[in-house]
Amino acid sequence: MDIATLIGIVLAFGLMIWAIIMGGPLSIFIDAPSIAIVIGGTAGVSLINYPLADVIGTIAIVKKTVLIKEPDTNKLIVQLLEFANKARKGGILSLQDQMDSIDDQFMVKALQMAVDGQEPAELKAMLLTEIDNIAARHGKGAQILDTMGAISPAMGMVGTLIGLVQMLQNMSDPASIGPAMAVALLTTFYGAVLANILFIPMAGKLKTRSKTEILQKTVITEGMESILSGENPRIMEQRLHAYLAPKKRESVFK
Amino acid sequence: MDIATLIGIVLAFGLMIWAIIMGGPLSIFIDAPSIAIVIGGTAGVSLINYPLADVIGTIAIVKKTVLIKEPDTNKLIVQLLEFANKARKGGILSLQDQMDSIDDQFMVKALQMAVDGQEPAELKAMLLTEIDNIAARHGKGAQILDTMGAISPAMGMVGTLIGLVQMLQNMSDPASIGPAMAVALLTTFYGAVLANILFIPMAGKLKTRSKTEILQKTVITEGMESILSGENPRIMEQRLHAYLAPKKRESVFK
Amino acid sequence: MDIATLIGIVLAFGLMIWAIIMGGPLSIFIDAPSIAIVIGGTAGVSLINYPLADVIGTIAIVKKTVLIKEPDTNKLIVQLLEFANKARKGGILSLQDQMDSIDDQFMVKALQMAVDGQEPAELKAMLLTEIDNIAARHGKGAQILDTMGAISPAMGMVGTLIGLVQMLQNMSDPASIGPAMAVALLTTFYGAVLANILFIPMAGKLKTRSKTEILQKTVITEGMESILSGENPRIMEQRLHAYLAPKKRESVFK
Amino acid sequence: MDIATLIGIVLAFGLMIWAIIMGGPLSIFIDAPSIAIVIGGTAGVSLINYPLADVIGTIAIVKKTVLIKEPDTNKLIVQLLEFANKARKGGILSLQDQMDSIDDQFMVKALQMAVDGQEPAELKAMLLTEIDNIAARHGKGAQILDTMGAISPAMGMVGTLIGLVQMLQNMSDPASIGPAMAVALLTTFYGAVLANILFIPMAGKLKTRSKTEILQKTVITEGMESILSGENPRIMEQRLHAYLAPKKRESVFK
Amino acid sequence: MDIATLIGIVLAFGLMIWAIIMGGPLSIFIDAPSIAIVIGGTAGVSLINYPLADVIGTIAIVKKTVLIKEPDTNKLIVQLLEFANKARKGGILSLQDQMDSIDDQFMVKALQMAVDGQEPAELKAMLLTEIDNIAARHGKGAQILDTMGAISPAMGMVGTLIGLVQMLQNMSDPASIGPAMAVALLTTFYGAVLANILFIPMAGKLKTRSKTEILQKTVITEGMESILSGENPRIMEQRLHAYLAPKKRESVFK
Repeated sequence: MDIATLIGIVLAFGLMIWAIIMGGPLSIFIDAPSIAIVIGGTAGVSLINYPLADVIGTIAIVKKTVLIKEPDTNKLIVQLLEFANKARKGGILSLQDQMDSIDDQFMVKALQMAVDGQEPAELKAMLLTEIDNIAARHGKGAQILDTMGAISPAMGMVGTLIGLVQMLQNMSDPASIGPAMAVALLTTFYGAVLANILFIPMAGKLKTRSKTEILQKTVITEGMESILSGENPRIMEQRLHAYLAPKKRESVFK
Repeated sequence: MDIATLIGIVLAFGLMIWAIIMGGPLSIFIDAPSIAIVIGGTAGVSLINYPLADVIGTIAIVKKTVLIKEPDTNKLIVQLLEFANKARKGGILSLQDQMDSIDDQFMVKALQMAVDGQEPAELKAMLLTEIDNIAARHGKGAQILDTMGAISPAMGMVGTLIGLVQMLQNMSDPASIGPAMAVALLTTFYGAVLANILFIPMAGKLKTRSKTEILQKTVITEGMESILSGENPRIMEQRLHAYLAPKKRESVFK
Repeated sequence: MDIATLIGIVLAFGLMIWAIIMGGPLSIFIDAPSIAIVIGGTAGVSLINYPLADVIGTIAIVKKTVLIKEPDTNKLIVQLLEFANKARKGGILSLQDQMDSIDDQFMVKALQMAVDGQEPAELKAMLLTEIDNIAARHGKGAQILDTMGAISPAMGMVGTLIGLVQMLQNMSDPASIGPAMAVALLTTFYGAVLANILFIPMAGKLKTRSKTEILQKTVITEGMESILSGENPRIMEQRLHAYLAPKKRESVFK
Repeated sequence: MDIATLIGIVLAFGLMIWAIIMGGPLSIFIDAPSIAIVIGGTAGVSLINYPLADVIGTIAIVKKTVLIKEPDTNKLIVQLLEFANKARKGGILSLQDQMDSIDDQFMVKALQMAVDGQEPAELKAMLLTEIDNIAARHGKGAQILDTMGAISPAMGMVGTLIGLVQMLQNMSDPASIGPAMAVALLTTFYGAVLANILFIPMAGKLKTRSKTEILQKTVITEGMESILSGENPRIMEQRLHAYLAPKKRESVFK
Repeated sequence: MDIATLIGIVLAFGLMIWAIIMGGPLSIFIDAPSIAIVIGGTAGVSLINYPLADVIGTIAIVKKTVLIKEPDTNKLIVQLLEFANKARKGGILSLQDQMDSIDDQFMVKALQMAVDGQEPAELKAMLLTEIDNIAARHGKGAQILDTMGAISPAMGMVGTLIGLVQMLQNMSDPASIGPAMAVALLTTFYGAVLANILFIPMAGKLKTRSKTEILQKTVITEGMESILSGENPRIMEQRLHAYLAPKKRESVFK
């Protein structure tokens, strides 16, 4: 579970609601047609912009990305060095046994290719194609959220324009002008909150998570190429440590 | 038929019109000169910006892209594997018969080149040039819609400025100020609606569709290169599956 | 003559002026100091931003690009295939005669190099350098117009700020506030019109035209390389057709 | 200590506070709920957007980057030339002694690899991977600050919308309208100040510093490759001087 | 001396001041605290964003770039062809004499390397690294001016918010509201003028100048490589002419 997302949502929404209550009742910030225009409009425009399956898929991607705990790159390097040792002692085929106990489908595919006897260069090329396509799929999820973050303020502006036109056409009662304009501003408010506190930062976390995952898959690719080439484990560790910040590196050779 | 686009348009426009009716008559949102400035102006500026043929071509691209059902990448991979089997048994020339039953012009050209005896590397290079040019043509359609999505709010602002200047020059009757400003805001409203509910999301869908088509043409290119090189069908399947999300992959080898 | 540009300008300006006249006299939209600030300011800032020769050169580029009729890529491919046939029959040197009847300087240079006995790879490298530099020169014209499209609304805003400050310092006569603010808004109006109806779409057309020209010069480069390599004309046609949309391709081999 | 940052903060904030005091008491610019919305909201949204560790890490990166004095590239080149001389006289292994007196971990790793007997090309490839990953980590810090610079004005706008809605719903007392609107504007003010005087320029300095560090690590990589290849020190100096502005170059050969 | 910059500044500022005087006294556009916030704030934030030496260096770069007359690319090509002839007759070493009469440090370094006996490929690689670093240094100057062009309107907005808050808190005297708001708008005015008439177009001219300089240094690099390779001067001229617009090319072979 990604605790930061939870803390962030509670903090941002909590402070906003606290500040609202400090100044008056929360009820003046709730208006059904305004909610319909902004949320319904954002949903509608998202469906014009993306295929149905992609919009639905985004929810799954967000859930998965936010809930899953990030694996540790250091442990991954240690695991690859163990594979390297095993392969040096028992040959590449001895890695076959490892495959059942591994969850990561990418690692399983890489091991399967190695066991199938692929050349190091070909294995690397195919895994890099795979990484490119994973990055493209991740990118699509973040892009849909970013698009929603652009649509919701636009729908908010559309709603405010509707409210302003109606208010301006109907200014006979001066006392009603203020509240009418307040309601007109609500859609802009909804759009700004949805975009800036939900959609855009969620897209941001998706991108951050994707970068980490891509980096780890690159480490796996480099490591498997190194194992297949029969490279010295010390050199292999040096090569893989380049992907880690210096102070996070823990050498197994001591 | 792309059902999401239809649902999206109905949802976004429906909710907007419902919200308008909740607050007053729909008629105050209709004004002929305002429509002329925004729609006519957007059309005019599009013609300054792009050649006539490209602007007209965009309508055809939109219609085709929105109406055509996306083919399934998995089926495409299965079809390429069948070609591979056929070519392994009967030689490359046996693929000649397949060409009549295929709709996709790109696949036909790829098969024709293979049957004509091109080298794998040359075939790949020529198909990649073809893909680059397809991407450029698709990109032009999306770019024209994006440009329209930038012009229409600009024309909306121009219209509102015209209305404001006229209202400000003529403030002797206070009762007319509100309605005059309401009318002035209508062009901004039209511009925002056209850009955010039609042009920009339509450009978005065009881009998404184009990406899928490019990916499938890349799969065809990789597959044909693999067939011409006489690669093992299992390896070929692994190579092509890299373009699919892991859970969508269906192996024919079981 | 590019008819779309003309239609577009007439349409956009015509509708705008019609909409203005519908609401009041055209004369309230004309103000000498406002015109001086926006047009003079845009000219001045363009000269700070670009060398004098480049700013003047832009006018020539616009005139040439808008007036010249686009050549047909299909005809170009047919012409290159004729050169290929001639070269296959009479040797490369037989292309010498063609050079006098060709207008396009790029084609002449390519033929000259071929006749001078350059290697295919070197000829291609030199023509690609030439294309890069043509693209850079075209890009400069479009960039200057885009810059003008950014300056004119900025000068419009500066003018409006000047008008507002003067109006706010002088509010003793309430009846003058409206007209003073109307005049203040005129610079914003001029800036928006110049940027959105002239500068930015003209830059857009320049970019579109440049892309077509670059594509045709790439076709010439590919074609000349193919001729020098003595490639089969059918293959050469296939290679060059990749730069055309499938439905525009007209084969000479039938 | 980076004196420019300190001077800049004192200058920008000092002038702003002086200008405020010139026009009235400072106290009207302080409002607790407004501060809570902007600062708390920015913190909250940052946590939705980035993992907790990255947000905390940014503070450390800022502190380190701002406090550490930039090393001199010229001295670095002189040091590398000394290594080259030492290696020419005593062999690569003689560089072992140097490693203890060097602080820079990157230089230590490069020397270690050289002493371990790596080939020049492989050493270069591994150091370039290391540099790519350093640039990615630096980039993350600058990106987080830039994101904060985008969130804080957005939270400011949200706060102002809340204040405006509350003011507009409650306009019975005309005397309270002005002060209520003043308070509503405070969040926009806080957001603009935080973004433009703190977050965005701090991100800017981080990027500038990172560029210098990357350039110096590139100089080390080029230098070590040159040493391993046994290149002539004069040529090596020429090669490394390319990374320095001409007037900063100080040759050791005179 | 770059006459366009001077004409531009006189034109833009002159017309603006003329338009101001047409509408009232110039004195209402001058306010000390407003100037302090915008100019001082921009200076302060620039120092937070960039090292002190870079900010000061920008002034020198601007002065140099604006004052120096652009050399002529055609003359440069003629000069390189003379070097080629000299080298063909007297050997590469005969270029030694030329070095004293040349101002351009880049040309001197290129000749020095040629005389030192570098291989064509290595000479090209080292000069291209040098060009990359020159471009990076030029880019920094333009970037600092662009940053100032982003800071000054932001400081303008901060100043206007300060003025608005103070005005809104103090609305007891209706007659003072207008002038107070006029003063509040002055910072926005200063920010817009500084950014749009000074900083951004100056950054633009720096970029244009840098492009020309980079292009000329690329011509030198290509030319020196050609000389070292002993290429035919006619071919060398053709190669270098690719960097010139066709109508500017003047062949020495006629």
